[in-house]
Amino acid sequence: MSSKTDIEVIIAGKVFTLSGYESEEYLQKVANYLNSKYNEYNKLPNFKRQPIDTQNILMQLNIADDYFKAKKQISLIEDELQRKEKELYDLKHELVSAQMKLENLSKNSNNRR
Amino acid sequence: MSSKTDIEVIIAGKVFTLSGYESEEYLQKVANYLNSKYNEYNKLPNFKRQPIDTQNILMQLNIADDYFKAKKQISLIEDELQRKEKELYDLKHELVSAQMKLENLSKNSNNRR
Repeated sequence: MSSKTDIEVIIAGKVFTLSGYESEEYLQKVANYLNSKYNEYNKLPNFKRQPIDTQNILMQLNIADDYFKAKKQISLIEDELQRKEKELYDLKHELVSAQMKLENLSKNSNNRR
Repeated sequence: MSSKTDIEVIIAGKVFTLSGYESEEYLQKVANYLNSKYNEYNKLPNFKRQPIDTQNILMQLNIADDYFKAKKQISLIEDELQRKEKELYDLKHELVSAQMKLENLSKNSNNRR
């Protein structure tokens, strides 16, 4: 188990000390992701005109949207995986059946010699 | 293409009107997800003691963490999918080779009759 560490990240220009079991690399990656969202939003004049709590909710909705899109993708790839597994299962049966026929044919041809 | 609609959602006890192309069902699902995060956090006395901007950043980090965990899962399932595709490719080759042997053996045994 990894040990608990304190890691400083800068988000929206402020320093936050995060305490947890995640690696510094991971936390910096998450902080970078949030900062890029802040940069994106701060370019929109409509966003800056909103009250702070609306700005926060919009940011949260945006991140949650990324999360739900990723979950959707997971479900699509899992369906694809299931189709491949079914295909593999069928092919294995077909192969076993071809191999059994081969075995029988070679036995018969050996007996005839 | 679906048309742009205004949808009201309640997040953290406040009504927000969201304008966009997403379905109402989807937006309510995202709002429910955010509300369950708020409920979770509001049970923690340590969280409530933080300044509002820290609370917001902690919420954003938490949602972003869900997103990155989902991305990690995508990458794991994609690896699994790639392994299955390799396995399918190999099995198809094996099957074709068994079928060719079968064909040759039955030709030979027919010629011998």
